[in-house]
Amino acid sequence: MSSSSTTPAAVSVNASCERLVARLIDDAARLHVDVARTDGGTVIVDAGVNAKGSAAAGILIARICMGGLGHVARRSAFDAAPLWPSYIEVHTSNPVIACLASQYAGWSLSATKEQTGGKKFFSLGSGPARALACKEPLFDELGYRDRHDRGALVMEVDRLPPQVVIDKVLNDCNLKPENLVIAVTPTHSVAGTVQVVARVVEVALHKTHVLGVDLDEIVEGSGSAPLPPPAPDGIQAMGRTNDAILYGGRVHLTVKSDAAAKRLAAELPSSNARDYGRPFADIFTSFNYDFYQIDPALFAPAEVWVSSLESGATHHGGKVDKALLDAQWLAAGDGS
Amino acid sequence: MSSSSTTPAAVSVNASCERLVARLIDDAARLHVDVARTDGGTVIVDAGVNAKGSAAAGILIARICMGGLGHVARRSAFDAAPLWPSYIEVHTSNPVIACLASQYAGWSLSATKEQTGGKKFFSLGSGPARALACKEPLFDELGYRDRHDRGALVMEVDRLPPQVVIDKVLNDCNLKPENLVIAVTPTHSVAGTVQVVARVVEVALHKTHVLGVDLDEIVEGSGSAPLPPPAPDGIQAMGRTNDAILYGGRVHLTVKSDAAAKRLAAELPSSNARDYGRPFADIFTSFNYDFYQIDPALFAPAEVWVSSLESGATHHGGKVDKALLDAQWLAAGDGS
Amino acid sequence: MSSSSTTPAAVSVNASCERLVARLIDDAARLHVDVARTDGGTVIVDAGVNAKGSAAAGILIARICMGGLGHVARRSAFDAAPLWPSYIEVHTSNPVIACLASQYAGWSLSATKEQTGGKKFFSLGSGPARALACKEPLFDELGYRDRHDRGALVMEVDRLPPQVVIDKVLNDCNLKPENLVIAVTPTHSVAGTVQVVARVVEVALHKTHVLGVDLDEIVEGSGSAPLPPPAPDGIQAMGRTNDAILYGGRVHLTVKSDAAAKRLAAELPSSNARDYGRPFADIFTSFNYDFYQIDPALFAPAEVWVSSLESGATHHGGKVDKALLDAQWLAAGDGS
Repeated sequence: MSSSSTTPAAVSVNASCERLVARLIDDAARLHVDVARTDGGTVIVDAGVNAKGSAAAGILIARICMGGLGHVARRSAFDAAPLWPSYIEVHTSNPVIACLASQYAGWSLSATKEQTGGKKFFSLGSGPARALACKEPLFDELGYRDRHDRGALVMEVDRLPPQVVIDKVLNDCNLKPENLVIAVTPTHSVAGTVQVVARVVEVALHKTHVLGVDLDEIVEGSGSAPLPPPAPDGIQAMGRTNDAILYGGRVHLTVKSDAAAKRLAAELPSSNARDYGRPFADIFTSFNYDFYQIDPALFAPAEVWVSSLESGATHHGGKVDKALLDAQWLAAGDGS
Repeated sequence: MSSSSTTPAAVSVNASCERLVARLIDDAARLHVDVARTDGGTVIVDAGVNAKGSAAAGILIARICMGGLGHVARRSAFDAAPLWPSYIEVHTSNPVIACLASQYAGWSLSATKEQTGGKKFFSLGSGPARALACKEPLFDELGYRDRHDRGALVMEVDRLPPQVVIDKVLNDCNLKPENLVIAVTPTHSVAGTVQVVARVVEVALHKTHVLGVDLDEIVEGSGSAPLPPPAPDGIQAMGRTNDAILYGGRVHLTVKSDAAAKRLAAELPSSNARDYGRPFADIFTSFNYDFYQIDPALFAPAEVWVSSLESGATHHGGKVDKALLDAQWLAAGDGS
Repeated sequence: MSSSSTTPAAVSVNASCERLVARLIDDAARLHVDVARTDGGTVIVDAGVNAKGSAAAGILIARICMGGLGHVARRSAFDAAPLWPSYIEVHTSNPVIACLASQYAGWSLSATKEQTGGKKFFSLGSGPARALACKEPLFDELGYRDRHDRGALVMEVDRLPPQVVIDKVLNDCNLKPENLVIAVTPTHSVAGTVQVVARVVEVALHKTHVLGVDLDEIVEGSGSAPLPPPAPDGIQAMGRTNDAILYGGRVHLTVKSDAAAKRLAAELPSSNARDYGRPFADIFTSFNYDFYQIDPALFAPAEVWVSSLESGATHHGGKVDKALLDAQWLAAGDGS
């Protein structure tokens, strides 16, 4: 019937989020972020190191982090007995590319004291520029590589990256200095909290991968998680963004097969983990701050629904734990 | 006081959605739709026949289907005990034009085996191009006709339309071939499920019309319905989009008079129908797949609120049936 | 590290909402507003005096009223037992500027019978043009003044403003006549109801100021309130928008210090007021329509959460009163 056809090409995560990156820079005053350029022209957006940042900046950075392929929004409770007053809501019709090829914080970026001329630096890079560099073995499995002359990277770290790290990113991404934008969001900042809680669907995708379920199974992803304020203490700040997902996160995936739906509903929820049931900061502290002692099965949403296109059935597993969140997040005597 | 005044002209549903149609085409890769052109230049957007489609495509097509006069969004549950994890939310300040002059699937488009040179074809056309053709008696009652040199049509059918049907649409709409866009969304596709569930307010408007309530009464419309995955079986797929509205749909209308508000709150809900209480697929099957045996009062939202501008009072009727939806949609043993 | 830096300038509330003002005018037909120009060229947008207006117009005017620095949306209930079917949701990362320097209805605009050549006129002006005129003592405390060559003002009044009032606004704002847009939303109109209910966060900010808490404390604000239809009677219409906030409004603030968080959670909720517990219209009537007899502590959201950046703790106070809202808003015998 058709004389010509436009077969959908692979989406470029860096191209798809360019409009959002431009808005982050143009609306710096409204978003309370500082925008600076290195000598080479690389744009550094400070969303919480020296700048105040904001929840609105965190939302925009989360959307950039998903390569423009996800919907991320702040929501307010209006049900009769809310779990929490504020939420982050995430949707994507490209869950594997948006979450694993872009949003996942998987690119290890470090510099020694000698290289920085000061303190040593470490951060996990996330966002679409990862898919230009493809330095992680994950990309071989994803079969996705972006090609674009501009890139954006997000760093969850409490200081601005040293030039040696910026140069490494430019080199690995094959970008001109002026074509790279790096957004920096400390864990203990408002923007940082938002962009980590916005990983609720990504966390489900990552655990799907850890479980060895074929990523081609995953068709749609959406979810929500309660948004706490940051904690001033670094361990507590990390703890509460994790608790938001592990004890308050909900994800609805659509997959191809019944077998995958059934298995994911059973195995995805955080309640499968040995360490489940205690606040994350307590667990982390009890293992002497050694991440690798924590049962990796813990990094998952609290509650999942997994719908199968094969049968149309939806499998349900896990549940949110309001009591744990209230005990951690509400001031003493304020239990709702 | 004013020297000149711009009286609002009637809104063109086809003009209002042009920007959305452009996005559907431009973002084909992100939306997992295939875009093809016929020899004459008509654009066919496949959102689930050979293409995979997506929920995001379904949302965009639903907005196009409302002639750009409605807000349609995917939402995630975050209340303490969710009815369902995912929802479609719809709002419109132009309910009669958006829902009945545009979104309602009322244009019968068919072709015989002789005409197609293959299988016979049948589909109900919905969307703004209906208001260019005005082939349905409904348009006389609406007193609305669109005039625009571009048009968009949605077809809920499992194959691409034959040229003879495209030619009929072009002729009836008085459009040049290259100025028509047709989006095709099979019932059993993800995009198709979304765009049908997004009819929750339209279903309320249509029943208002069936009840003989003056459509001029209706001022505002909004609502929500749970979003299940499609079922692979055609009858089951149709059944569950209907169940989403009949047993899970909620609509809030604002009308002019108290009499209309009171009557609609009492008579609109699906619970008024003889066949209410059983899954739609069961009802349909029990009538030997004869649509016309089903009590037309069944096609309605489960729960409605109707506010009157005359008194300011809000009348409430019906209720959602979580048990029925869970029994149909959740895998056995997964009751939440 | 950086060779140049763009320090965020203060945001212009009038510049930030220009795009929204243009949409209000361009989409007049869809929004059911009338757009007229005075002889001098000032644009008057009638959203409920002679025009029908709409909820969509109310949403857009609410966003303009926050100087483009807030997110305002209509939402539908989808929880198991909804408080109400429709809500307004508000978010801002610039709560003090958006709510107090722009949205707060604090600019007293009046004209005598002699000046109007007819009836005397009174309206409280709200919206970004207030920050150009800075006629209210509040602006000294805010330390904010906008400079822009275009301005937008919102008037909650049931007739169009006389030329003498328009001239006063033009003069105080130092604007050319053709560069001012005034949106008029009567209390008893659909758009007016929406834009008043959208003040739920503003009401919390204003009470924070009344309580004498340093406004520099306030970092983020979000909230929701149920959206009733307007009542035809003026007192009842004013009563129900107030009830929406006083008995149905919820606000989540993020502040800097623990002391402020604790105090605001305790003192902000409307339940602190002497007159709390009765419908607003009853209270107002019982004081012989004398606003100044009402305990000012009543003007506040029903329920608040206040998060502290100092400790990361969230303090909670107040609660919504579904029974009162149902008794006021639902038709007799329709209790849900």
